[in-house]
Amino acid sequence: MKALVYGGPGQKTWTEIPDPTINHPRDAVIRVDAVTICGTDLHILGGDVPEVQAGRVLGHEAVGTVTAVGDGVANLKVGDRVLASCISACGVCRYCREGVYGQCLGGGGWILGHTVDGVQAEYARIPFADLSTYRLPESVTDESAVLLADILPTSYEVGVLAGQVRPGDTVVVVGAGPIGLAAILTAKLYSPTHVVAVDMAQRRLDAAKQFGADVTVLADGNPEGVVRELTDGLGADVVIEAVGTPATFELCAALVRPGGRVANIGVHGKPATLHLEQLWIRDVTITTGLVDTRTTPKLLDMLVAGQLDTAQMVTHRFTLDRIVEAYDVFARPAETGALKVVLTRG
Amino acid sequence: MKALVYGGPGQKTWTEIPDPTINHPRDAVIRVDAVTICGTDLHILGGDVPEVQAGRVLGHEAVGTVTAVGDGVANLKVGDRVLASCISACGVCRYCREGVYGQCLGGGGWILGHTVDGVQAEYARIPFADLSTYRLPESVTDESAVLLADILPTSYEVGVLAGQVRPGDTVVVVGAGPIGLAAILTAKLYSPTHVVAVDMAQRRLDAAKQFGADVTVLADGNPEGVVRELTDGLGADVVIEAVGTPATFELCAALVRPGGRVANIGVHGKPATLHLEQLWIRDVTITTGLVDTRTTPKLLDMLVAGQLDTAQMVTHRFTLDRIVEAYDVFARPAETGALKVVLTRG
Amino acid sequence: MKALVYGGPGQKTWTEIPDPTINHPRDAVIRVDAVTICGTDLHILGGDVPEVQAGRVLGHEAVGTVTAVGDGVANLKVGDRVLASCISACGVCRYCREGVYGQCLGGGGWILGHTVDGVQAEYARIPFADLSTYRLPESVTDESAVLLADILPTSYEVGVLAGQVRPGDTVVVVGAGPIGLAAILTAKLYSPTHVVAVDMAQRRLDAAKQFGADVTVLADGNPEGVVRELTDGLGADVVIEAVGTPATFELCAALVRPGGRVANIGVHGKPATLHLEQLWIRDVTITTGLVDTRTTPKLLDMLVAGQLDTAQMVTHRFTLDRIVEAYDVFARPAETGALKVVLTRG
Amino acid sequence: MKALVYGGPGQKTWTEIPDPTINHPRDAVIRVDAVTICGTDLHILGGDVPEVQAGRVLGHEAVGTVTAVGDGVANLKVGDRVLASCISACGVCRYCREGVYGQCLGGGGWILGHTVDGVQAEYARIPFADLSTYRLPESVTDESAVLLADILPTSYEVGVLAGQVRPGDTVVVVGAGPIGLAAILTAKLYSPTHVVAVDMAQRRLDAAKQFGADVTVLADGNPEGVVRELTDGLGADVVIEAVGTPATFELCAALVRPGGRVANIGVHGKPATLHLEQLWIRDVTITTGLVDTRTTPKLLDMLVAGQLDTAQMVTHRFTLDRIVEAYDVFARPAETGALKVVLTRG
Repeated sequence: MKALVYGGPGQKTWTEIPDPTINHPRDAVIRVDAVTICGTDLHILGGDVPEVQAGRVLGHEAVGTVTAVGDGVANLKVGDRVLASCISACGVCRYCREGVYGQCLGGGGWILGHTVDGVQAEYARIPFADLSTYRLPESVTDESAVLLADILPTSYEVGVLAGQVRPGDTVVVVGAGPIGLAAILTAKLYSPTHVVAVDMAQRRLDAAKQFGADVTVLADGNPEGVVRELTDGLGADVVIEAVGTPATFELCAALVRPGGRVANIGVHGKPATLHLEQLWIRDVTITTGLVDTRTTPKLLDMLVAGQLDTAQMVTHRFTLDRIVEAYDVFARPAETGALKVVLTRG
Repeated sequence: MKALVYGGPGQKTWTEIPDPTINHPRDAVIRVDAVTICGTDLHILGGDVPEVQAGRVLGHEAVGTVTAVGDGVANLKVGDRVLASCISACGVCRYCREGVYGQCLGGGGWILGHTVDGVQAEYARIPFADLSTYRLPESVTDESAVLLADILPTSYEVGVLAGQVRPGDTVVVVGAGPIGLAAILTAKLYSPTHVVAVDMAQRRLDAAKQFGADVTVLADGNPEGVVRELTDGLGADVVIEAVGTPATFELCAALVRPGGRVANIGVHGKPATLHLEQLWIRDVTITTGLVDTRTTPKLLDMLVAGQLDTAQMVTHRFTLDRIVEAYDVFARPAETGALKVVLTRG
Repeated sequence: MKALVYGGPGQKTWTEIPDPTINHPRDAVIRVDAVTICGTDLHILGGDVPEVQAGRVLGHEAVGTVTAVGDGVANLKVGDRVLASCISACGVCRYCREGVYGQCLGGGGWILGHTVDGVQAEYARIPFADLSTYRLPESVTDESAVLLADILPTSYEVGVLAGQVRPGDTVVVVGAGPIGLAAILTAKLYSPTHVVAVDMAQRRLDAAKQFGADVTVLADGNPEGVVRELTDGLGADVVIEAVGTPATFELCAALVRPGGRVANIGVHGKPATLHLEQLWIRDVTITTGLVDTRTTPKLLDMLVAGQLDTAQMVTHRFTLDRIVEAYDVFARPAETGALKVVLTRG
Repeated sequence: MKALVYGGPGQKTWTEIPDPTINHPRDAVIRVDAVTICGTDLHILGGDVPEVQAGRVLGHEAVGTVTAVGDGVANLKVGDRVLASCISACGVCRYCREGVYGQCLGGGGWILGHTVDGVQAEYARIPFADLSTYRLPESVTDESAVLLADILPTSYEVGVLAGQVRPGDTVVVVGAGPIGLAAILTAKLYSPTHVVAVDMAQRRLDAAKQFGADVTVLADGNPEGVVRELTDGLGADVVIEAVGTPATFELCAALVRPGGRVANIGVHGKPATLHLEQLWIRDVTITTGLVDTRTTPKLLDMLVAGQLDTAQMVTHRFTLDRIVEAYDVFARPAETGALKVVLTRG
């Protein structure tokens, strides 16, 4: 089959490799029907994720059709159409017993396209298939569903739920790229009174409006003043970091009210400064996290029920064999306007 | 009356000033029967708390007897013996309605010995008396009770409860001074399996053992290794910061397991470095806070019931007129072995 | 002034009585601008609430203008336009300290029109005025605001929050009278996937659709079957009882899934049968409660922001002097179609 | 091998049957080293659990040694010494994903000695072995460990955790049989100020004192008065039902304070009366539940650490071939004083 193979920093090739097979009783193999590219894939190509070794097939977000199942798989059969999620789970370790699948100690967690071959390929092996895939109802399109592989549960669990958004809250989302937009979309499930989006690009702020932000402010447009005015000088109830730089994290900590919460989603490569000399007395909670995908079944139900319009996030579409071109479009959002790109079988 | 008056950085005098009176219908005046000195008082004298102006009477932890009450006070009468707590509360603002008295927007919060005259005096005016005092049963001594004015609820609320200590947990307390010891004492209410104390002084670690730590380790004795070994390499469930320096905070963040919590109690004067490049993926929660004293009634019940041995924290006793000497003893714990010093009417 | 005075079971008169005055430093007096009638008022007239004595002015839901304040009142001044809530709070007792104002031990709780004179009058004394009233912004009409005096916070706190409605849930509301409709309205703040309304009257089910229910079923139309089909046979995540009879409560307990919650809002006059022989193994949580009005500030913010369309609940309007007629209309909803009736100064 | 085979109501035989074998890749087979008898086993013999069919091997609480494992089992190998728990879990269904193993929809839940052959036998097949067993450290005896198969996690999860016992609480446990005693033992982990035991037998109340109750009261000795006096007339914070009759449940509901919780552990055969005419206004929470065994790993850690003295619960010991005699002793506790009986290989 063909697959996108990582060749070390800066290198990737769409090339022929052997088809995947069942290696373990709990594996399944899927034919990939739709796949997307994650900002994390760009980090890998940038050399920031050294665990990923040359030769690895990239990708951790797919929709596919089951072509083989191990005899320890309980709930899947050949022909099932499934979402293949970014997180796999052994289901047995202490973390999995608590539903904290992202921290799985038994060989799961984020493994696809990271420590085992991923899904940017014509076929893929899915370890721990029962806990890594979700059967899809017919009414859901591949394109809508593939966004539930990572970006939606990540923004919802690590941003909205960790941030404990509640009805009537003022929520600030710093960063209006795909993950920030997904945070806006899912924060709205809790009926906050205000969702404020902060970004450096007006184009992204326009997208934020589309996704439900009622206030938008450029990063250099005094977000602290805007939030202060909106909240009687107190600050926001919840601030969600969706960029991953020291400056944006520090802005989040400056925007939160006493007693409020900062939920970090961003992938950080450097330490940030934590102004404890101001924060120690302010009853602030800061959370970090990797997605567990424990909410994926509920998100899928809401997608089916028409409560989540994920499809608006897809700006570009390609066939799978044009994946190198798709990466290029996705990597230059300022020019291309790309949010999520989806690749499908031709 | 006599009172300890702050005279600017480094200056304090036990001197004659006018007796306090009822200024507002919700005030009470107490005769001070016992009072203690807080590490925060040393910070004020060090000039670190600029809101405190010269001329201010210091002190925010006392036991006293009510000598006058305003006509808007519901639950106190002259002669009542009360704990005067470090936190006052208007009871009406949005924070008070949630029990977050420390963040009171209506004129309360930490005001005694800070923005109004405090209790290191023969008499003191207590604003919002109904929500700032707690009637004491006869069976409780002044000396046991006065520790509930600040240090016990602070360590319990900001450390143990914010840290969500649970039965079976491994809890690390960094800093075995008075507040850290109180955190150990109150953490034990939740039956953790291990309480690890970390400090730079062996003498304090010995005290930590007395208060219930089962493992002690010097700060330069590889606390990370000790905690890792105790927890199958994962890290601690809860880490409580009870010092207030960048280095100790950063140690806390290094000691916590994925999915664990760091509860900061320490008063910080400088920012710390937050290693988001490691923490972003580890599901960590970091909390800060000022005490609300919302647990004071329960702590008082537990003190009465013999569940909290606070008296062991008192190492030195003075009469009130020797308060300058008492400050000196308290300020040099390495030499004097002082934990808490209590001053009483002669 | 004129007021509606209870004369014992079945008797009420709109009659002249002395104007109320400030009795206590924490009192305020308001001129009543708008008032509504509660189902509980009908219970009182039915003789079901024996604590209410003959001679009592009825009513516990009003909007008014402050005409006098005691000198212990912090946040109100003459001329303020306020919501007068069904719950008063001393702010000092152990329940008030936890925000559980409905259980106030210090003289508050539900007192207006119950143990002290109420607000179905031209003027009313409001005890504990700071914690019993909420200043209204100009943009909010009397008619919209008065529904926040009882019915909205009751349905939200005792139904939606106690029931822990979450995004994606299937919620059943049994009883589509005013309180049930308010439960539907406020449940929607949490984006449930399905809200099922059950009632005996088709007219009320039609109203339920207006308020946001997506499925409606007559009480004799097999609600158990409908809910089972909607939930793969499991039952509802949350069931809200909004009637107050044994039969409706028992229906709720039959509709809930294993691990789900039954939140009782209904005022009951008789015991119900709890089928523990079925429920003991099903992980069910049942809650009861009196409103605390702790969410009133947030509900008010959401009303101002246009997130809660309360006005659609008002079906009939009268001037205050026609209150006896208004009671008659409100007491015969099957014929009059009344949901809430609002009375205003002429 | 020999096993205790159920022959229909009232009938059981220690008899020869075929050895169990691996039927499914996720199965294990254990040699039974220690086993105990549950009150539920008596209910089965009484004919109260009709799903149990004649021919079924009874028993759901054992310690054993693994003799065979299926190839889908990840964490066990032949020779491992394990606790075999009353609850099995598929690990994949919606309930298992939330850790609610007791409600497993994938073939797990309480199945041993219920819908599949149990562990009162020389050997037993354990389905879903990874999620149904817990490896035991050498330092733990069989006798201490076997009590973690059901009674300890049941009392802890369904009583103490569902009841949300907190430091300083007054907790009432109604019923001082084995499950009630285990509730007392595990409630103490949260440092309640008072644990009140209620029972009809003085002998059991004496045992309750041993397990940590500080107040005991006979069922006909006015428990309501005793609790009222202990709580300033308010009632208990948490009441745990550990009997399973209408009268004891109704007593629990009468003993709880406004805002308190009733946690039902008892297995009920009949409905109870719920006095909603009193409770509707009292902010009461009532919970029911089957154990999930999600706390078993933590309880095991605490047992190893010496925090839980479970062995005191074992009053009688037998070899496995004397199991019929052991049932007789266990079934007549009033005469024999039996709490838990443990049977071991000879």
